[in-house]
Amino acid sequence: MDLPRKLFAEALGTALLLAVVIGSGIMAERLSGGNAGLALLASTLATVGGLYVLIEVFGPVSGAHFNPAVSTVMAWRGELATAALLPYVVAQLSGAVLGAWLAHAMFDMSLLQFSTQVRSGTGQWIAEGVATFGLLLVILRAPAARVSAMVAAYIGAAYWFTASTSFANPAAVVGRMFSDSFAGIAPASAPGFVIAEFVGAALAVGVHRLLSPAPPSSSTPAHHV
Amino acid sequence: MDLPRKLFAEALGTALLLAVVIGSGIMAERLSGGNAGLALLASTLATVGGLYVLIEVFGPVSGAHFNPAVSTVMAWRGELATAALLPYVVAQLSGAVLGAWLAHAMFDMSLLQFSTQVRSGTGQWIAEGVATFGLLLVILRAPAARVSAMVAAYIGAAYWFTASTSFANPAAVVGRMFSDSFAGIAPASAPGFVIAEFVGAALAVGVHRLLSPAPPSSSTPAHHV
Amino acid sequence: MDLPRKLFAEALGTALLLAVVIGSGIMAERLSGGNAGLALLASTLATVGGLYVLIEVFGPVSGAHFNPAVSTVMAWRGELATAALLPYVVAQLSGAVLGAWLAHAMFDMSLLQFSTQVRSGTGQWIAEGVATFGLLLVILRAPAARVSAMVAAYIGAAYWFTASTSFANPAAVVGRMFSDSFAGIAPASAPGFVIAEFVGAALAVGVHRLLSPAPPSSSTPAHHV
Amino acid sequence: MDLPRKLFAEALGTALLLAVVIGSGIMAERLSGGNAGLALLASTLATVGGLYVLIEVFGPVSGAHFNPAVSTVMAWRGELATAALLPYVVAQLSGAVLGAWLAHAMFDMSLLQFSTQVRSGTGQWIAEGVATFGLLLVILRAPAARVSAMVAAYIGAAYWFTASTSFANPAAVVGRMFSDSFAGIAPASAPGFVIAEFVGAALAVGVHRLLSPAPPSSSTPAHHV
Repeated sequence: MDLPRKLFAEALGTALLLAVVIGSGIMAERLSGGNAGLALLASTLATVGGLYVLIEVFGPVSGAHFNPAVSTVMAWRGELATAALLPYVVAQLSGAVLGAWLAHAMFDMSLLQFSTQVRSGTGQWIAEGVATFGLLLVILRAPAARVSAMVAAYIGAAYWFTASTSFANPAAVVGRMFSDSFAGIAPASAPGFVIAEFVGAALAVGVHRLLSPAPPSSSTPAHHV
Repeated sequence: MDLPRKLFAEALGTALLLAVVIGSGIMAERLSGGNAGLALLASTLATVGGLYVLIEVFGPVSGAHFNPAVSTVMAWRGELATAALLPYVVAQLSGAVLGAWLAHAMFDMSLLQFSTQVRSGTGQWIAEGVATFGLLLVILRAPAARVSAMVAAYIGAAYWFTASTSFANPAAVVGRMFSDSFAGIAPASAPGFVIAEFVGAALAVGVHRLLSPAPPSSSTPAHHV
Repeated sequence: MDLPRKLFAEALGTALLLAVVIGSGIMAERLSGGNAGLALLASTLATVGGLYVLIEVFGPVSGAHFNPAVSTVMAWRGELATAALLPYVVAQLSGAVLGAWLAHAMFDMSLLQFSTQVRSGTGQWIAEGVATFGLLLVILRAPAARVSAMVAAYIGAAYWFTASTSFANPAAVVGRMFSDSFAGIAPASAPGFVIAEFVGAALAVGVHRLLSPAPPSSSTPAHHV
Repeated sequence: MDLPRKLFAEALGTALLLAVVIGSGIMAERLSGGNAGLALLASTLATVGGLYVLIEVFGPVSGAHFNPAVSTVMAWRGELATAALLPYVVAQLSGAVLGAWLAHAMFDMSLLQFSTQVRSGTGQWIAEGVATFGLLLVILRAPAARVSAMVAAYIGAAYWFTASTSFANPAAVVGRMFSDSFAGIAPASAPGFVIAEFVGAALAVGVHRLLSPAPPSSSTPAHHV
C-alpha cells in the first residue's frame, strides 16, 4: 500500500506548481516595469517549464494530477481508486496553499494573504470551461511519452488564448486565492471558476468518447493506486 | 466508415486553432501596452504551443490538417480519399468561423465581426506563398514522430520571417476575416492570400519531388479516410 | 584512467555555462532599454538553450555536473568516486572563473571584476534552498534520456519563481562573484548562497528517498570515474 | 550520383535560413518600438524554430550544413567527399544571397542592398570564434537524433551570450552583407568574422579529439556524397 507516498507526491508537486505560478507572477510583476504583457509572458514560460518538469518528476509516483478535476475524471474512468479520490484532493488543496506560502516566503512577503482580484463574468467562465476542456482532452488523448510536454505546451497557449489566463485547476484556484499578487483570484470569484472547470472537464470526457473509435468500457478494473 | 468522426475532429481542431490564434492576439494586444512586437511575440508562442498540441491530439483521428491547402495536397497525393476532400474543407471552414466566435465569446466581444485590416500587395502575397510553401514542405518531408513539433516550430518562425505573419492556411484566412482584432484580415484581402497560399503549396509539391531520390508514384492507393 | 578527460570536460563545460549566464546577462542588460524583466527573459532563454546543449555535449564524458553540489551528491550516492570529488570541484570552480573572464573578453570589458550586487536575506536564502532542492530532485529522478531537457526547463522556471533567480550552483556563485554585471553576486553574499544550496541539495536527497518505493542501498559500488 | 540534389538542398536550405534570419530581423525591428532587446529576442526565437525545421527537412538529403565552415570540417573528417566541398560552398553562398533577396522581396524593400553596420574589434572576433567553436563542437558530438534540436538551441543561446550575436557561419556573413537591416554586417567587417569563424571551427576539431576516448582515425573512407 503506497497511497501515502502518492499523496506526498501530489501535495509536494502541487505545492511546487503553485510556487512556480505565484512566484513567477510576483517576479514578473516586479521586473516588468508595468507592462502586463511582458509579465504574463515571463510567467507563462516559467509555468511551461515548471509544469513539464513536475509532471515528469512526479508522474511515475502519483500520476502527477495536481488537479482535483483531473483526479475526478481519472476516478470516474477507473484509473484512480475511488477511495483515493478524496485523499488526493485534500493533498492537492493542502499543497496548493503551502505552495502559495512558499512563494511568499521566498519573496519576503507576509505569508497569509487573500487576493482582491475579481475574476468574474460570462467571458471568464466560458474561458475557464474551454481551458479545462482542452486540458482534459489533452490528458485523455496524449501518448504517455508526450503527456508532460503536451500539457505544458497546452497550458502555455491557454494562458494567452483564454480570457481567464487558464487556471484550469480547482487546486490552483484555491492556492491563488491565498495570494494578493499578479496570479491571485478573489475568494468570491473562486466558485464560478471551479464550477466552470468541472463543466469543461465533463465536456472533455464526452468529446473524448466521440473521437474514439470504440466506446471505452467503464468496467475496466482500477489499476492505479 | 468513420468519416463523421474525422470531420468532427477537423472542425473541432480548426475551431480550437483559430480560438488560439485570435484569442491570443486579443489578449496580447490588450496587455502589451501598444508594443506590437511584444504582442506578436506572445501570440507566436501561444500559437506554437497550441498547434503542437492540436496536431498531436487530432492527428491520429483525422490527420490534423485544419487547412484546405494541406487537404488538397493530401488528396492529390492519394493520402486523402477524393470524396472526403470537400467535406474536409467544409468542416475546416466551419470550424474556423466557430473558433473566431469562441474567442470573441471568451473575451466578451460581440460574436459577429468583420476585420478591417487590409493585408495586400506584392510583398504580402510573396510572403504568403513562401509561408505556405514552407509549411507544405515541412509536412511532406517531416518524420511522422516529429511532424507536430516541426509544424509548430515552423509556424513560429514564419510568424516573424514572412511579411504577412504567415497565415499559410485558407481556413485561417476565413476565420480571421470574422475578427476585427490583432489577427484579423479584411475580407477584400482574403482572395489574394488564398491564391498565394495555393501557389505556395503547389510549389512545395514540386520541390518535394526534386528533393526525393525516386519520383513518387501517383498510383499509390488511398489508404486514409 | 580517464579522469583528466573528465576534468577537462567539467572545466570547459562549466566555463561555457558561466559564459552563457554572464554573457547573456551583459547582452540583455545592454539591449533591454532598462527593462529588467525583458533582460531576465532573454537571459533565461539563453541559459535554457545553453544548459540543454552543454549537458548533452559533456554528459557522456563527465556526467556534466558543472556544479559542486551535484558532484557531492553523486559522490555520496557512489556514482562518483570519492577520490574524484575534490578534482571535480576544483575543475568546476576554475572553469567558472575562466567562463566569467571569457564573457568579459567577448564584451570588451576588463577581465578582472568583482560584483557589488548584494543578494542576501531570509527570502533569498530560502529561494536558493528551494532552487537547489528542485534541481537535485530533477537530476535524481529524471529519466536518463530527458535529463538535459528537464534540467534546462527547470532552471528556466527557477530563474523566475525563486526570488534569487536560482543560482543553485556553488560554482555559478563563484564565477558570478567575478563579474560586476547583471548576473553578478557580491563576494560577501556568496557564503549564504552556498550554504543554502547545500541545504537544499541535502533536502532533495531525503525527499528522493521518501518518493522511492524501496530505500536505495548505500553499498552500491562506485561505477563511474 | 545525386550531388545535384544535395546542392539544390544546400542552396535552398541556406536561402531559407537567411530569409529567416534577415526577415525576422526586419519584422522585429519594425514592430519592437525601438527596443533592441525585444527585437533580438523575437529574431532569436524565429531563428531557433527555423533552424530546427531546416535541419530536419534538409538533413537527410545533404546533411543540412548551410555553412562552409561545417562543410570544410566534414570534408576534413572524410564525411564529405573532397570534390564536393567547393560545390557545397558555392551552393551555400549563392543560397545565402538569394535568401537575403527573398527577405527583401517579402518586405517590399529594394532587393540589392549592402549593410553599413560595422561589426569589428577584438571582442567581436573572440565572440565569433567562440560562437563557431561551440557550433562545431555541438555538431561533432550531438547524437544524430538530437542534432537539429541541439544546433537550434545552441544558436539561440549564442545569439545572446556572444557579443557578436553569433553569425558562426561564413555563408550567413555573406548573405547578411547584402542586407542593410537589423541582421546586416558591413562588407568591410566580413573578413574578420570569417577568419574568426574558421579559427573557432579548427579549435572545435581539436577539443573534440581531446574529449574523445580514442583518437579518431583520419583514414576513415568517405561515405557521404
